[in-house]
Amino acid sequence: MSVQSSVPLATREDLALAYTPGVAQVCEAIAADEALVHELTWVGRAVAVVTDGSAVLGLGNIGPRAAMPVMEGKAVLFKQFGGVDAVPICLDTQDPDEIVAIVTALAPSFGGINLEDISAPRCFEIERRLEATLPIPVFHDDQHGTAIVVLAALRNAARVLGRELHDLRIVVSGAGAAGVAVTKMLISGGADAGEIVVLDSRGCLHTGRTDLNPEKSALAARTNAGGITGDIVNALRGADVLIGVSGGTIGEAALAGMSPGGAIFALANPTPEVHPSIAARYASVVATGRSDFPNQINNVLAFPGIFRGALEAGATRITDGMKVAAASAIASVLAADELSLGTIVPSALDPRVAPAVAAAVAAAARVDGVLR
Amino acid sequence: MSVQSSVPLATREDLALAYTPGVAQVCEAIAADEALVHELTWVGRAVAVVTDGSAVLGLGNIGPRAAMPVMEGKAVLFKQFGGVDAVPICLDTQDPDEIVAIVTALAPSFGGINLEDISAPRCFEIERRLEATLPIPVFHDDQHGTAIVVLAALRNAARVLGRELHDLRIVVSGAGAAGVAVTKMLISGGADAGEIVVLDSRGCLHTGRTDLNPEKSALAARTNAGGITGDIVNALRGADVLIGVSGGTIGEAALAGMSPGGAIFALANPTPEVHPSIAARYASVVATGRSDFPNQINNVLAFPGIFRGALEAGATRITDGMKVAAASAIASVLAADELSLGTIVPSALDPRVAPAVAAAVAAAARVDGVLR
Repeated sequence: MSVQSSVPLATREDLALAYTPGVAQVCEAIAADEALVHELTWVGRAVAVVTDGSAVLGLGNIGPRAAMPVMEGKAVLFKQFGGVDAVPICLDTQDPDEIVAIVTALAPSFGGINLEDISAPRCFEIERRLEATLPIPVFHDDQHGTAIVVLAALRNAARVLGRELHDLRIVVSGAGAAGVAVTKMLISGGADAGEIVVLDSRGCLHTGRTDLNPEKSALAARTNAGGITGDIVNALRGADVLIGVSGGTIGEAALAGMSPGGAIFALANPTPEVHPSIAARYASVVATGRSDFPNQINNVLAFPGIFRGALEAGATRITDGMKVAAASAIASVLAADELSLGTIVPSALDPRVAPAVAAAVAAAARVDGVLR
Repeated sequence: MSVQSSVPLATREDLALAYTPGVAQVCEAIAADEALVHELTWVGRAVAVVTDGSAVLGLGNIGPRAAMPVMEGKAVLFKQFGGVDAVPICLDTQDPDEIVAIVTALAPSFGGINLEDISAPRCFEIERRLEATLPIPVFHDDQHGTAIVVLAALRNAARVLGRELHDLRIVVSGAGAAGVAVTKMLISGGADAGEIVVLDSRGCLHTGRTDLNPEKSALAARTNAGGITGDIVNALRGADVLIGVSGGTIGEAALAGMSPGGAIFALANPTPEVHPSIAARYASVVATGRSDFPNQINNVLAFPGIFRGALEAGATRITDGMKVAAASAIASVLAADELSLGTIVPSALDPRVAPAVAAAVAAAARVDGVLR
């Protein structure tokens, strides 16, 4: 990526206007009314893509320098799909207090903060603390971007299968950043919390577990009304939907217990929890995170439009209402005659998506009254 | 300004290459050899323009948001003249410890750090601490950019006046960030330290003063061999050169004591310490920081080429040798027949400058052995 001037700089007059002495007038206007920084500079269109390199793709804790290609790629996608100017910021610290302090100090330079590839459970605390204090949107894409696209995909899967979201028995395999957010988003989006079972590496989350962090504890209290215990074989028995966000593998023996005609989203990247050709034996709809199989659940369907809508509206945060609106917009891009078992989400390159998401998010921001 | 992709993103294959899964290979290469981040991402071309908003132009401590237009303008100049991708970073803290910690944590994301509009004496400590620990160039432009262009201008003024730099009696009015750096650079560039007198708001710096901060103390020890005391009237008596970097005003009574046929650089912006039409009564060469008078001493002659050269060479810091080389390159752009009393520096728009500076700086970095 590169930086470009959006004004000409060919003459002495251009220079005097874009830089000193002309720039002093702009500075003085902002000093008198700080909110003008969003209109009079690039801040209103600029998003920091912030990572500490602790949970990069499926590669793990590879540090800030090795994380840079992902953040730069993300910045390019922000521009391409959302017209948002994003700057990759890879931090040389993994201490939550330091990350919060640094991002807080950086905030005047940006209209929004996209947190990226920060490991759980640190990511929950960091996002919560930044959201509580910053006057601009903070969005951890690994959580909410994934969750929004999963909700969109599951809504359309239900449409194709002729089912209702709130009637589905759903298993979420993985209770890291994505698993926690997916579960919350499905509930916000209309799924029946009691019919969802979430698993971490030790098995089903239930209220009898004493080894849970606060995020998992909260999920255990809201989900799994049936009190299912044990491993994924138990969880999947009779389930309609499996959402894998674990990075592990799930064997056929477990899948065989699912109700026929459901859905399997195997989202681990680059290696899905179960190969789509195997998953297809046990579910009618199969989705992965990969572009070389049908039904790619790709965050790029969400984050460019979400930030574009939030920035355009002057939103101070990204509410649950805005996230659900984004999921609805993604799902609704596909008309009834475009939907099929192999097409439950729009293509990552579909130019209709980001504008639809941006408009829906901006409208929801106005409804929720979170405007600057 | 805006961000642009430098690769196409039109097809699913483009997406798979620029982002997941293709990006994982790039991440793994950098994880194996961190120095590759400079070649495989934009880091090797990217500079952070960092301020705390404490000393912006002549406007003072207007804070990070009101400082943004200057940093954005600067970023645009970086690109236009040096082909360097610069990102404005305005920090919401003015605590030196916090600024050092934040910039240290940001360093993996950038190939260089341009500090900007940070007030003295905090700027000295911040720059020194960052230089000591970071593996990339750190450059406080208000100090060194100004100093480099002043040295270039004074060398060419001496050429025009038929004088030698080391024979000149020089008065530097102002002992803030710019005054301290200008004085050091003139000495590094060949001026006679003992023949330089520096003044702060209380008068001449000399070894008898007990009210000096460490930077001023060090200057007092190196300069003013004649032990001149008192105000600027005393300092200017018989002086050949006045360099104003104070932001105040200098009266005619003081100027009248100068040796005839010398030079006055009145660099306060936007209001020079003395109007050029008055200064011309007492000196043959008159320069200001403004584009609407002859001889504009403008940092844009220095910083784009300096960072371009440093980044291209893979320099880990910017040495005195690199700064002097930059000044020589700026001065040498003007051939003998282009030089005149009214043209001692190239135009800010002269396309020969940045490439010449970049080449000289890169060569000096190799000589000084400060390569990655």
